[in-house]
Amino acid sequence: MSHFSIAEARALAVGPEVDLAAIDPASTPGISGSSKDIEKATAKIEDEVADLQELLYANKRAGNDPGNVLIVLQGMDTSGKGGAVKHTLAGLDPQGIHIASFGVPTEEEKSHDFLWRVEKALPEAGVVGIFDRSHYEDVLVHRVHQLSSAEEIERRYQAIVDFEQRLVESGTRIIKVMLHISKEFQKENLIERLENPEKHWKYNPGDVNERQLWDDYQTAYEIAIQRTTTDQAPWYVVPSDNKPYARMVVKYLLLDALRSMDLHWPEADFDVAAELERVRNS
Amino acid sequence: MSHFSIAEARALAVGPEVDLAAIDPASTPGISGSSKDIEKATAKIEDEVADLQELLYANKRAGNDPGNVLIVLQGMDTSGKGGAVKHTLAGLDPQGIHIASFGVPTEEEKSHDFLWRVEKALPEAGVVGIFDRSHYEDVLVHRVHQLSSAEEIERRYQAIVDFEQRLVESGTRIIKVMLHISKEFQKENLIERLENPEKHWKYNPGDVNERQLWDDYQTAYEIAIQRTTTDQAPWYVVPSDNKPYARMVVKYLLLDALRSMDLHWPEADFDVAAELERVRNS
Repeated sequence: MSHFSIAEARALAVGPEVDLAAIDPASTPGISGSSKDIEKATAKIEDEVADLQELLYANKRAGNDPGNVLIVLQGMDTSGKGGAVKHTLAGLDPQGIHIASFGVPTEEEKSHDFLWRVEKALPEAGVVGIFDRSHYEDVLVHRVHQLSSAEEIERRYQAIVDFEQRLVESGTRIIKVMLHISKEFQKENLIERLENPEKHWKYNPGDVNERQLWDDYQTAYEIAIQRTTTDQAPWYVVPSDNKPYARMVVKYLLLDALRSMDLHWPEADFDVAAELERVRNS
Repeated sequence: MSHFSIAEARALAVGPEVDLAAIDPASTPGISGSSKDIEKATAKIEDEVADLQELLYANKRAGNDPGNVLIVLQGMDTSGKGGAVKHTLAGLDPQGIHIASFGVPTEEEKSHDFLWRVEKALPEAGVVGIFDRSHYEDVLVHRVHQLSSAEEIERRYQAIVDFEQRLVESGTRIIKVMLHISKEFQKENLIERLENPEKHWKYNPGDVNERQLWDDYQTAYEIAIQRTTTDQAPWYVVPSDNKPYARMVVKYLLLDALRSMDLHWPEADFDVAAELERVRNS
């Protein structure tokens, strides 16, 4: 069964009643979990995604304001954010892409409101932006480690909703994805990193400390998603123990966003026949 | 004959005596011009380039200073700079890539020395940077359109040599590529853009004005290359009427740079066995 479509990807959107524990990270809704089916369903849309991104970028270059796309990727360590970035953007024109990663805030970043560094990292018009972690760290980590008061975290949920609302109103399609993995899958991934010297650089002993707070993180994710999933900027909880499945879903969501922009090739703002004549005589 | 190798790519480096007119833009030194052979020679190194870039990026992430790579692409309109960016970076991890395009300078940029905006666009350690046009515009366009005095342009050649020397000394591998096309090939490309409405956005009537200054640009390129090709940051004049050939060459030059960095997987700065135990018990 390889008839995955945008409808199945959209069905992963969640509302404010979301119950993370009820979503099986190992499931592959809308398709069999076989890598062959997933590859086929991914390959089916790759050209269209690439063409639409070129069209989007062409509009930017032509001086239009076609809007843009922002993909926000969140997930526990080893949930596949880096791989999702790479695979989602494969085949796209790198000049029309903007990637931002958000690590522990610097001293300068901490001296500003938490959305300051996010604002600076937004994609411009005509560009597909992708966040590897995001402003959601500032409610997730802050809740789990009690780095902010409960009141401050409540303020932030609303600030995020308002911020994203403004982005949507100014022409951004926001795709918020939680790469939802199981605790057991994370363990396998961490062991794999440790057993392969070529993956040691991806491992950080702090990852295990965070892992010990697994349940707290799940709660923090659930509440953050409940508070910030909206009609215009919904959260998608994507089962991600099957990484190719998760990457495929992100690609379909990107396709959905690009299609919704109703893009057309920019009209020539010059006399085409006259220019052809000029070129031929040159 | 598909035995293209790094040696053939290096052979395209030019010295201060370079004579552009003597280099045939339609030639494909080191390989037959057949697309099959070129595809094969390109495919042969793609995995290694991707692996080495991952290794480079891994070192950055591990907090090492592995140096970086800067590819500077110059060429007349339609010489394939955008396509070279896309194809050179295909398959690489987008998080370890930095692209900068240099258009007409803004008022703010003009109020600084010409290298100011370039400095800001340099890739960080561990990253492969690519410039679509560069600081060379500030000697090429300025010479052709007499936007600067002859003295100022002479000053700039030397400033560029000093600037690039500093970059090399601080660990950057600089690959300077002129995508060398013929005037006839440019005509074909411009006509193709005009005949295809999906390519109109790539066309600018100003392109024909510049085309009318073709010989002046060739002279400006030749002098700029003569003045700035050095042992440590040589210019490569890459025949580019055959676009797949030119892209292949850039990929080989990138491979050469990456290999020269003598990269190794970062050592774990933690006790691997102890961490495995911690993960297994978590």
